[in-house]
Amino acid sequence: MTKNTKQHAKVAIFMGSASDEALVRPCTEILNQLDIPYFFTITSAHRTPERTADLINELEQNNCQVYICAAGMAAHLAGAVAAKTIKPVIGIPLNASPLNGMDALLATVMMPPGFPVATVALDKAGAKNAAWLAAQILALKDDKLADKIKSTRKEFKQAVEEAASKLK
Amino acid sequence: MTKNTKQHAKVAIFMGSASDEALVRPCTEILNQLDIPYFFTITSAHRTPERTADLINELEQNNCQVYICAAGMAAHLAGAVAAKTIKPVIGIPLNASPLNGMDALLATVMMPPGFPVATVALDKAGAKNAAWLAAQILALKDDKLADKIKSTRKEFKQAVEEAASKLK
Amino acid sequence: MTKNTKQHAKVAIFMGSASDEALVRPCTEILNQLDIPYFFTITSAHRTPERTADLINELEQNNCQVYICAAGMAAHLAGAVAAKTIKPVIGIPLNASPLNGMDALLATVMMPPGFPVATVALDKAGAKNAAWLAAQILALKDDKLADKIKSTRKEFKQAVEEAASKLK
Amino acid sequence: MTKNTKQHAKVAIFMGSASDEALVRPCTEILNQLDIPYFFTITSAHRTPERTADLINELEQNNCQVYICAAGMAAHLAGAVAAKTIKPVIGIPLNASPLNGMDALLATVMMPPGFPVATVALDKAGAKNAAWLAAQILALKDDKLADKIKSTRKEFKQAVEEAASKLK
Amino acid sequence: MTKNTKQHAKVAIFMGSASDEALVRPCTEILNQLDIPYFFTITSAHRTPERTADLINELEQNNCQVYICAAGMAAHLAGAVAAKTIKPVIGIPLNASPLNGMDALLATVMMPPGFPVATVALDKAGAKNAAWLAAQILALKDDKLADKIKSTRKEFKQAVEEAASKLK
Amino acid sequence: MTKNTKQHAKVAIFMGSASDEALVRPCTEILNQLDIPYFFTITSAHRTPERTADLINELEQNNCQVYICAAGMAAHLAGAVAAKTIKPVIGIPLNASPLNGMDALLATVMMPPGFPVATVALDKAGAKNAAWLAAQILALKDDKLADKIKSTRKEFKQAVEEAASKLK
Amino acid sequence: MTKNTKQHAKVAIFMGSASDEALVRPCTEILNQLDIPYFFTITSAHRTPERTADLINELEQNNCQVYICAAGMAAHLAGAVAAKTIKPVIGIPLNASPLNGMDALLATVMMPPGFPVATVALDKAGAKNAAWLAAQILALKDDKLADKIKSTRKEFKQAVEEAASKLK
Amino acid sequence: MTKNTKQHAKVAIFMGSASDEALVRPCTEILNQLDIPYFFTITSAHRTPERTADLINELEQNNCQVYICAAGMAAHLAGAVAAKTIKPVIGIPLNASPLNGMDALLATVMMPPGFPVATVALDKAGAKNAAWLAAQILALKDDKLADKIKSTRKEFKQAVEEAASKLK
Repeated sequence: MTKNTKQHAKVAIFMGSASDEALVRPCTEILNQLDIPYFFTITSAHRTPERTADLINELEQNNCQVYICAAGMAAHLAGAVAAKTIKPVIGIPLNASPLNGMDALLATVMMPPGFPVATVALDKAGAKNAAWLAAQILALKDDKLADKIKSTRKEFKQAVEEAASKLK
Repeated sequence: MTKNTKQHAKVAIFMGSASDEALVRPCTEILNQLDIPYFFTITSAHRTPERTADLINELEQNNCQVYICAAGMAAHLAGAVAAKTIKPVIGIPLNASPLNGMDALLATVMMPPGFPVATVALDKAGAKNAAWLAAQILALKDDKLADKIKSTRKEFKQAVEEAASKLK
Repeated sequence: MTKNTKQHAKVAIFMGSASDEALVRPCTEILNQLDIPYFFTITSAHRTPERTADLINELEQNNCQVYICAAGMAAHLAGAVAAKTIKPVIGIPLNASPLNGMDALLATVMMPPGFPVATVALDKAGAKNAAWLAAQILALKDDKLADKIKSTRKEFKQAVEEAASKLK
Repeated sequence: MTKNTKQHAKVAIFMGSASDEALVRPCTEILNQLDIPYFFTITSAHRTPERTADLINELEQNNCQVYICAAGMAAHLAGAVAAKTIKPVIGIPLNASPLNGMDALLATVMMPPGFPVATVALDKAGAKNAAWLAAQILALKDDKLADKIKSTRKEFKQAVEEAASKLK
Repeated sequence: MTKNTKQHAKVAIFMGSASDEALVRPCTEILNQLDIPYFFTITSAHRTPERTADLINELEQNNCQVYICAAGMAAHLAGAVAAKTIKPVIGIPLNASPLNGMDALLATVMMPPGFPVATVALDKAGAKNAAWLAAQILALKDDKLADKIKSTRKEFKQAVEEAASKLK
Repeated sequence: MTKNTKQHAKVAIFMGSASDEALVRPCTEILNQLDIPYFFTITSAHRTPERTADLINELEQNNCQVYICAAGMAAHLAGAVAAKTIKPVIGIPLNASPLNGMDALLATVMMPPGFPVATVALDKAGAKNAAWLAAQILALKDDKLADKIKSTRKEFKQAVEEAASKLK
Repeated sequence: MTKNTKQHAKVAIFMGSASDEALVRPCTEILNQLDIPYFFTITSAHRTPERTADLINELEQNNCQVYICAAGMAAHLAGAVAAKTIKPVIGIPLNASPLNGMDALLATVMMPPGFPVATVALDKAGAKNAAWLAAQILALKDDKLADKIKSTRKEFKQAVEEAASKLK
Repeated sequence: MTKNTKQHAKVAIFMGSASDEALVRPCTEILNQLDIPYFFTITSAHRTPERTADLINELEQNNCQVYICAAGMAAHLAGAVAAKTIKPVIGIPLNASPLNGMDALLATVMMPPGFPVATVALDKAGAKNAAWLAAQILALKDDKLADKIKSTRKEFKQAVEEAASKLK
C-alpha cells in the first residue's frame, strides 16, 4: 500500500530538486515503516513559488499536519513554506555545494522570530530525523504511533547491543 | 495569572544555567502572551542528569507535550532530553563561548538518526522561535491557539507596514 | 528634493526590518548623491510576502530597474525578490546574529541556477556597494550617470592621496 | 554561429586559469542559448595584469557591457577588473583549494566601497547565475532578451512539474 | 593474548556506532602494543543511555581508570560519560557528517566547567593519541609502562631519521 | 598556605604571556580549593624554549605529574611541552586574536600521533576544566582527592537546584 | 631622525586606508627601533592602482628591498603589489569587517603559484611580525641588523623571566 | 647535478613527515629549476626536536639563508624553527586532516610577535610559492637569480596567452 497521497497526507515532504532524491529517501522510508500517509513532491522556493503556495493550500484543506522541506545551497524552501502556514515546518539542510552544507544549514536554521523552521541534521541523518520528528509531533494525538516510536527505540537499543556483542 | 506550573505545563523549558536567563526569557514571554501553561526551570545535562530525568518523568505524567532546551557551548541538554522522551524536543543553541554559538548550534542540530532535536536560531531569536514552534505544534489540536497564532501573524504584517510608513 | 518615490524609482531598496536602517542608510546616501530616484521601504520575505509581491508589481509597472535587498540571519529577502522579477537583484547581507553575518552572506549568495542575487559585502560597505552597483547598471544607458561615477572614482583617488600626504 | 567574439561582445568572461574551464563552461552555454555575443578568454590578475588592462580597454571601445570574472583561491581577478571599469562586474568564486571555495568567495565578495563585485554562487551554479545576471542586466534595454529570460523561467517551472510527476 | 576484557580493563573504549570501528581501531592497536588491558564496546549517549551507565558502573567496580569515547556529529558520548564518572574521560571526535568533523570537535571539547573531556585530534590521529594519552595517565603509577612509552618515542625518532635517510 | 611551589608541585601551569593571567586564574583557584600543590609561571614556546625545557626538567625531578599549558593564537606551547615529557599535558586554548580562539583551539588539539594534548574548552571554562581534569588524573592514586571531586559535584547539583528554586 | 623616507627606504609599507593606521603603527615602531629606513603611505589596490604602480617603480629605483602591505576585507593590496615586483612582499591581513579578518587572511595568503605573499598574523601582532620578517630578510646582508634582532630576542626572554618573577 | 646538499644549501626544506613528500615536491622542483642549492629533509617539531635544532645549527654554520617548513594538522614545525633562527622562515600549511588545512593554516600564520613565519598557501600551490618566495629573498643579493625570476614571470604571461589562444 502506497503512503504517498495528497488527499490523506499527514506529512508533506517538499524537496527543491529531483537531484536531492537520494538524500531525502530515508525520510519516506521511515514514514512508510511507521504507516504515516505522506505526500512527497518536488517544488522550489524560487522556480515554482506559486506551485509551492498551491500545494500548501491544497494540503491544508486535506488536513496535512506537518511539512518537511529539504533544500541545499541558500536553502530558502523551508522558510518560504513557514511563511505560508502555521503548521510545524521541519527543514532538512542538504550538502549541495562545495561549502559542505554550512550554507544550507545556516539558511535553514537562522529564521527570524515568528517563523520557526525546526531544523534537523544535514543530509540522510537529517532526512531520517525529519521523519522521526514529524512522527513525534503526530504521536501527540496518536497513541498507536507513539507505541511504534517507543518500540523502534527498543530496537535501536537491541541493535547497539547486538553490534557490541559482535565486536571482537 | 502565572503560567509557570509543573502540574499543568504543556511546554517545559529547561536551560542549562541561571546565566542563560536573559537569552531565554523571550520564550516565556511569548508563551505567556499565548496563554500556554509552561514550566521553566534550570537543569543540566552534566551537572544534574538525574534531576533532568526526574523532571521529564514527572512532566510526562502531567501530560507535558513539548520540551524546549536552551544551552551553550557543547550544548548537550536538548540531546539528553531527546534520549529520554518521544515528545518533540526543541533546541535553542546559545552563544556562550568565544566561538559565537557555532559550538552550541552544531552540538544541538547534528543529532544522530532516531533522536531529532528541532533546532531553532541562536539566542533571543531562537528563544522566540522555540515558543512559536511549540505553539504551532500544540495548535495542531487546539484551534483557539491556532487562531491566536494567525492573528499575531497579522500583527507582524501590520508592524512592518507601520514601520515602513514611518521610514522617511 | 527627495529621491524616495515609488512612482519614479529606478532603484527599489527593501530591508527586512526597521532595525536594519542604520546599516542600510549609506546606500540611500550614495543614491541621493548620484541623483538616482529610489524607493526605500521595509518588507519581509516571511512576515509580508504579499506586500513584497505587491511592491514588486507596482514598481515594475513604474519601470523600476534594479532591486536592492538587505537582510540578516537566514537572509531570504533577496532570493524571494529574485524569484518574482527578472530585473537585477542586489543582495546586502547583514550581520544580525552572533554568527558575524556568515549566515546572511551564504543565504544570499548561494542561490540556485536561474535566480542570481548579485551579492555585495556585509553591512555598510555592502550597502555602499549595492548603491554603486545599481548605479553602474543604470549607467549602461545613462551617460551622465556614468560620468558622475567616473568623477567620484577620481575623488576616491584624491582622497587617498590627501590622506597619504597627511600621514606622518 | 559562434558567439565568442571580441568585436561584438556584450559580455566578457575572464577566467584566471585554463584549468577553470570545466567550471566556467555552463556560463557560456547559457549565453549561447540566449544568443548573447560574448568574449571568453583567460587572463590573470597577477600573471597578466597588463593583458587584463588591455583587454578591458579594447572591449570597452567595442561597447562591452558586462564583465564576468571567475577565479579561485585568493580570487583577485574580479576586483582587479572592477578597479578598471565602471561597467558591472560579476564574480564567480571557484573552489580551487582545500578550503572549499571559502577563500575565493570572501576574496570576491568583500570588496571595499566604490568597487562592487556582483558575486554569485561557487562553481557551476555560480557560472550559470553569472550568465543569468548578465542577461538580466542586458535585458534592461533589450525587450527580446527579457522575453527569452521570462520564457526560460517558465521552462524551469515545467521542468519542476515534470520531475514531480515522475517521482514515485 | 587478548587485551579486550571488562574484568581487568584499565581503559574502556566506547564508540557510538559500529560504523566508527575503522577510525577507532588504531586506538586498540596501540593499547595492545603497550599491553594495557582494555574493554572496547559500542554504546550510545542517545540510543543506549542505560547501557552506558551500567557499563560505567561495572567498569568502575573493576577498577577501570580511564575512559575513551569516540563519536561523530553532535558527539555527546564523551560528555555523557564525563557526567557519570570522575575518572579521566578522553574524547575522540569523528568526522561523520559533511561538516568535516567540526561538529564533533566542538561538541566534544567545549564542555562546561566541572566536566572536562580531554579532547584529542579527529579520526585516526585522535584514536592513536587517545591511546597514548591514556597510557601516559596510567604510566603515572606504572614505571614499566612509562619505560615503554619512552622507548616508543625513541622509535619515533629513529623512524624519522630512517625516512630522512631514504629521501632523495 | 600558598600552593604555588616548584618543589612540591603536582601540577605545573605554564602560560605563554603575562596578559593571559585573567583567563588562566580560574585554574589556580580550583587547584587551591582542592589543596593541590602547583607551580604557576610564564614561559613561551617561542620566546623562551630553553626556559620551558629547563622548567620541565626541574619539575620532573620534583615529581610533577601533570602539565597545563595555556596559550593563544598559533598556540604551540602545549605541543612543545608534550614533546619533552611523557606526563599528561593539558592544553587550554585562549581567545587572543580576532579569530575567536579557533586558531588556538586547532593549534592545540590537532596534535600528531604520539604527542597528545588533552585539550579543554576555550578561556575561563577551559581553565577551570584543566584544573578539574588534572585533579581527576591525580585522584587515580589519591582517594581523598577523589572524595573532594565527588563532593564538589554534589555542590554543583545543589547549586543548580538552588538557582532553579529562585527562578520565578 | 625620521625613518619615513621614499628615497632611502629599505622597506615600503602600504596600507589600503587611513583608517588602518592604528593597526599598522606597531610595524613602523619596530622599524624605527631597528633603525631601518622605511616609507609608509596609503595606497589602494582598487582606488589607486596607478599610484600603487608608480610608487613601486619609484621605490625600486631607490633600491627598496621589501614591501609590506596591510589591508582588510577582500585584501587584494599585497597580491597586487606582488604582481608588480619580484621583491619579497609581506601581507598583513586586517580585521575590518564582521568576518573577524578571515576574509582578509584568506585573500592574502591563498595566492596562486608564482606570486607569493609572505603572510603574517592578523592586526597588530601581524604588523609587528611584518616588521620583524622584513628585518630578518634585510639582516641576511646586514650583520649589524642581525645582531640587533638577536639582542631583542634576548630581551624577549628577559621580559618573560621578569613577568614570571612578578607572578604571584 | 643534484642541488640537495647540506653543505652548500641556501635553502633548507623541512617537512614533518615522509607522507608529506608529494605535496612538498613542487617546492624542490622550482628550486632545481632556479639552480638554488637546497637541503631537503624530514624532521618533526614533536618527534625530533633535537634533530631539528641540530640541523639548524649545522645549516647556519654552512650559511643557509632561508628555511621552508611544511607541516599539517597543528603545524608547529615552522614556529619551532622560527624560535631557533633569525633567518626568514617560510611556512607551508598542509591539508592533512579532515579540517581541510584550516588547522595547519592557522597554526602556521598566527605566530606571536617577534617570531614571524612567512606563510604561503596550502599544499602544492604553497609549496611552489615557498620556493618562489625563498628565491625572491635570495635574489636581493643575487642579480642573476633576479633575472631568472623575471624571465619565468614572462613565461607565465606567455603561458596564459597561449592557453587563451587555444580556448575555443
